[in-house]
Amino acid sequence: MNIGQYLIKRLQQIGLKHVFGIPGDYVLGFYDQLVDSPIKVIGTCSEIGAGFAADAYARVNGLGAVCVTYCVGGFNVLNAVAGAYAEKSPLVIISGAPGMAERRRTPNMHHRVGNFNTQQSIFEKVTVASVAIEDAGLAPTQIDHTLSACLQHKRPVYIELPRDMVHVPCPAPRGPLAHVAYRSNSNALKEALLESHAMLAAARQPVILAGVEIHRYGLQQRLVRLVEKTGYPVAATLLGKSVISETHRQYAGIYVGAMGKQPVRKLVEQADCLLMLGVFMTDINLGINTAQLNPQRSVQINEGLVTIKHHHYADIRLEDMIRGLTKFPLKAARRRWPAPTLPQAFKSIAKKNITVNRFFARLNHFLGPKNVVICDIGDSLLGAADLTIHRRTEFISPAYYTSMGFAVPAAIGAQMRNPKLRPVVFVGDGAFQMTGQEISTIARYGLNPIIFVLNNKGYTTERFIHDGPYNDIHEWAYHLWPQIVRKGWGCEVHTEGELEDALRQARLNSTSFSLINVQLDPFDHSDALLRLGRAMGKNIK
Amino acid sequence: MNIGQYLIKRLQQIGLKHVFGIPGDYVLGFYDQLVDSPIKVIGTCSEIGAGFAADAYARVNGLGAVCVTYCVGGFNVLNAVAGAYAEKSPLVIISGAPGMAERRRTPNMHHRVGNFNTQQSIFEKVTVASVAIEDAGLAPTQIDHTLSACLQHKRPVYIELPRDMVHVPCPAPRGPLAHVAYRSNSNALKEALLESHAMLAAARQPVILAGVEIHRYGLQQRLVRLVEKTGYPVAATLLGKSVISETHRQYAGIYVGAMGKQPVRKLVEQADCLLMLGVFMTDINLGINTAQLNPQRSVQINEGLVTIKHHHYADIRLEDMIRGLTKFPLKAARRRWPAPTLPQAFKSIAKKNITVNRFFARLNHFLGPKNVVICDIGDSLLGAADLTIHRRTEFISPAYYTSMGFAVPAAIGAQMRNPKLRPVVFVGDGAFQMTGQEISTIARYGLNPIIFVLNNKGYTTERFIHDGPYNDIHEWAYHLWPQIVRKGWGCEVHTEGELEDALRQARLNSTSFSLINVQLDPFDHSDALLRLGRAMGKNIK
Repeated sequence: MNIGQYLIKRLQQIGLKHVFGIPGDYVLGFYDQLVDSPIKVIGTCSEIGAGFAADAYARVNGLGAVCVTYCVGGFNVLNAVAGAYAEKSPLVIISGAPGMAERRRTPNMHHRVGNFNTQQSIFEKVTVASVAIEDAGLAPTQIDHTLSACLQHKRPVYIELPRDMVHVPCPAPRGPLAHVAYRSNSNALKEALLESHAMLAAARQPVILAGVEIHRYGLQQRLVRLVEKTGYPVAATLLGKSVISETHRQYAGIYVGAMGKQPVRKLVEQADCLLMLGVFMTDINLGINTAQLNPQRSVQINEGLVTIKHHHYADIRLEDMIRGLTKFPLKAARRRWPAPTLPQAFKSIAKKNITVNRFFARLNHFLGPKNVVICDIGDSLLGAADLTIHRRTEFISPAYYTSMGFAVPAAIGAQMRNPKLRPVVFVGDGAFQMTGQEISTIARYGLNPIIFVLNNKGYTTERFIHDGPYNDIHEWAYHLWPQIVRKGWGCEVHTEGELEDALRQARLNSTSFSLINVQLDPFDHSDALLRLGRAMGKNIK
Repeated sequence: MNIGQYLIKRLQQIGLKHVFGIPGDYVLGFYDQLVDSPIKVIGTCSEIGAGFAADAYARVNGLGAVCVTYCVGGFNVLNAVAGAYAEKSPLVIISGAPGMAERRRTPNMHHRVGNFNTQQSIFEKVTVASVAIEDAGLAPTQIDHTLSACLQHKRPVYIELPRDMVHVPCPAPRGPLAHVAYRSNSNALKEALLESHAMLAAARQPVILAGVEIHRYGLQQRLVRLVEKTGYPVAATLLGKSVISETHRQYAGIYVGAMGKQPVRKLVEQADCLLMLGVFMTDINLGINTAQLNPQRSVQINEGLVTIKHHHYADIRLEDMIRGLTKFPLKAARRRWPAPTLPQAFKSIAKKNITVNRFFARLNHFLGPKNVVICDIGDSLLGAADLTIHRRTEFISPAYYTSMGFAVPAAIGAQMRNPKLRPVVFVGDGAFQMTGQEISTIARYGLNPIIFVLNNKGYTTERFIHDGPYNDIHEWAYHLWPQIVRKGWGCEVHTEGELEDALRQARLNSTSFSLINVQLDPFDHSDALLRLGRAMGKNIK
């Protein structure tokens, strides 16, 4: 066994079946090893596409990986890695590099910038562990530590493989990866549980707000148990949307401060004890800081940190807190909460031009339990926030880091991991122009997402924040992409009648992707977008 | 005047007329100021496209700029900035950032990753100066120092503008930018000149090898003077191609070690004194280290460093050395050198399938003095290396850093700066899939490059280095892009006859871009590519 094979073996052991990337000469040797292994190599059009695909794969699978060449490849994937770091997605970046021996012989090698440490020193900033394999003796331990950090922190790690290290022999792994078990401080846990319990037991209107860490740490079942045991109503954040089935009878809706629906806002903000489980307290997640959450009445539990009122407990696992609370005899006073937002009846008006609001109202009836919804930024996310997600964890979007161009490549990663789920993608025209060419990868691997390009002729979110000529973009005939990649089906829709036809066709077209160019007015918007634009515009003169 | 306006004023003063980028909410205030200024904002599809366009603009103009939003924008431009750093292109990166005041109030802001210093700390690695404007009092000095470093070192600099600093008042600039004049150490200069002169005077077969720094420091005229005064034959490196007109009677051709043409190799390697002016001693530039240059017979002059035999002189400017040598009474012994490679007669064979060699042979007759040739990586570069460039500095390619995806966006930057030059772009299909959507930007701004997609169905350069299934890509109908962007003209060519028709059409189509999908065999190649592949393949098991 050699170092490259060791790394592959470990990746397999911890559940990796696909790796995304683009080859280059510094990484070709390792690509050969991947081809010879059970891990499947998925070639994308660009490295940033590979990065977003691997991020989405990681969100669905619990681990994802991208494999690229030195600098020209690595730097192009940085933005996706930063997003995975910000939103806790366990992503392994594997980069080829010049061989150790040739660095001494011929240092001025192509793709190099600065010194041979430049790329690693950059990735150190957006990963929880990074290593350049420069010593064969240390390699197995270094690989193990790095992968273990990825699993523990649910954040990206970086492994750099000089090309002459790939084939250096090393001992085969003995047994499974010795995963560094992160344990709660038992005294702190006990104290935090007692205090939380006392607050909840004394409350008459306790509410649970569930966030994205529930998903990242695989705690969806535990959450359901706690919710059902206590009888508390539960809302979710935007980033945490679908951590609990939105058809669950205790589910109240998405909470986004003043940007979201009033009944949910009232429920959450008027709770006399708000139990926040794995919530990221970030600006968009909190409705551009319009959330009014009183710390005095809050128990905020995140992986590694519990905050009650204004004091903190460190070294406590989210899972242990949820388990502990489930064991307590908690019971909510019988009370009413807002009914879950079930899709309202919808009747198309054939000649009516499509609006964002009517579009999503219609789509709510289109989605089924076999879909995963993947949203890009802007109204693709805000409009989709009110869609009812049937099962858990079938809504993927970078709602904190908010990098445009995420959704089309993310559909590749999500469906690669779970071919039975058909992705429904909402992407703005601006975002599509960034990474939409990954349609080619979708065609290549025979995936069948349904992609809606919300074509409002520019950066419409920005129009509502602060408008100027820079928010216009050149309009594409997006629906002609099937001709470029010689596969798939596309159409353009202006009216509700045309949308009905398109939905019918897209559903029938189950063997390839469908791309629907949804013609919208440049200033049409969801209600949420208008509120967001106003709130965000205040920070710009 | 305020800080944003101050920066714009300075950029104007040092010759900037266009800035490339994509807006985002952290930079919208500054975008407004740009719109109100004489500097034109060019919106691209993706940030990496903006980066490559600005890099090419910088190479033509002597300064370029890209303006993006925080992290999600900045990180996407990193690869282009790294390339500009590696190849000495004077590029200013301007990034918006969260306001100083709001960072304290609401730290968990969208797009943030790590801490508020993360982005700057990353750009520090690929720039010669970087600054985050956090103190209004220091801003003018900091901006001046940073821009001055860009002009002096011909390398990227980074300026981060928190959005609440943009409108803070500051004094207007007094006079032009006080450019830090970098002067040679006069004693070292004198000594280096004397020693170089002695070596050259004693030589019977001296040769000049001209590199890319001649272009970066605007020394093309001075080079011609030295060449004509001394009568020495002159060759150029790949990265330096076109620093001297290739129709100059003393021009011998491109030197690329064993990868290039034999007569040029002989001339350069058998020189009894080789005067290297601004040459980057990098792997591809030296024919994948096949160059056999004897240091004992070399005078190597770079900006800031002169190396004669095995000793060095620091703090010497390239310009001062060339001026100094021109003043010396140097005269070459009368001798013959290889005739400049003028295009050989070419006759199309209508039914013959196109090959790379025949394609470039034909193109050599197509190019005129009103074209600028822009090459991506692979055979787009290697095949184009033998094209005759009529004027100076009309050949642009990232021949050291070799990042794919450079050429299509670079055409935007080059033609924006000089609308009278019609770019002729050579780009591989793999590279086109990375950034080819910038065709949209070309359409939007009414540019008219002629783009040849060398369609060999994959990463053919890699096929010759080391082949595997990962070198295949999904084939596009590249010539249908005009339908996507609703502008331009495209066609597909298989035979030499079809190529003739396409060239005729493309020349006539002067008001919009032309895109020619050149169908090639996946294993067809230029002679240089085969040699390169063999040399590079040796480093991969």
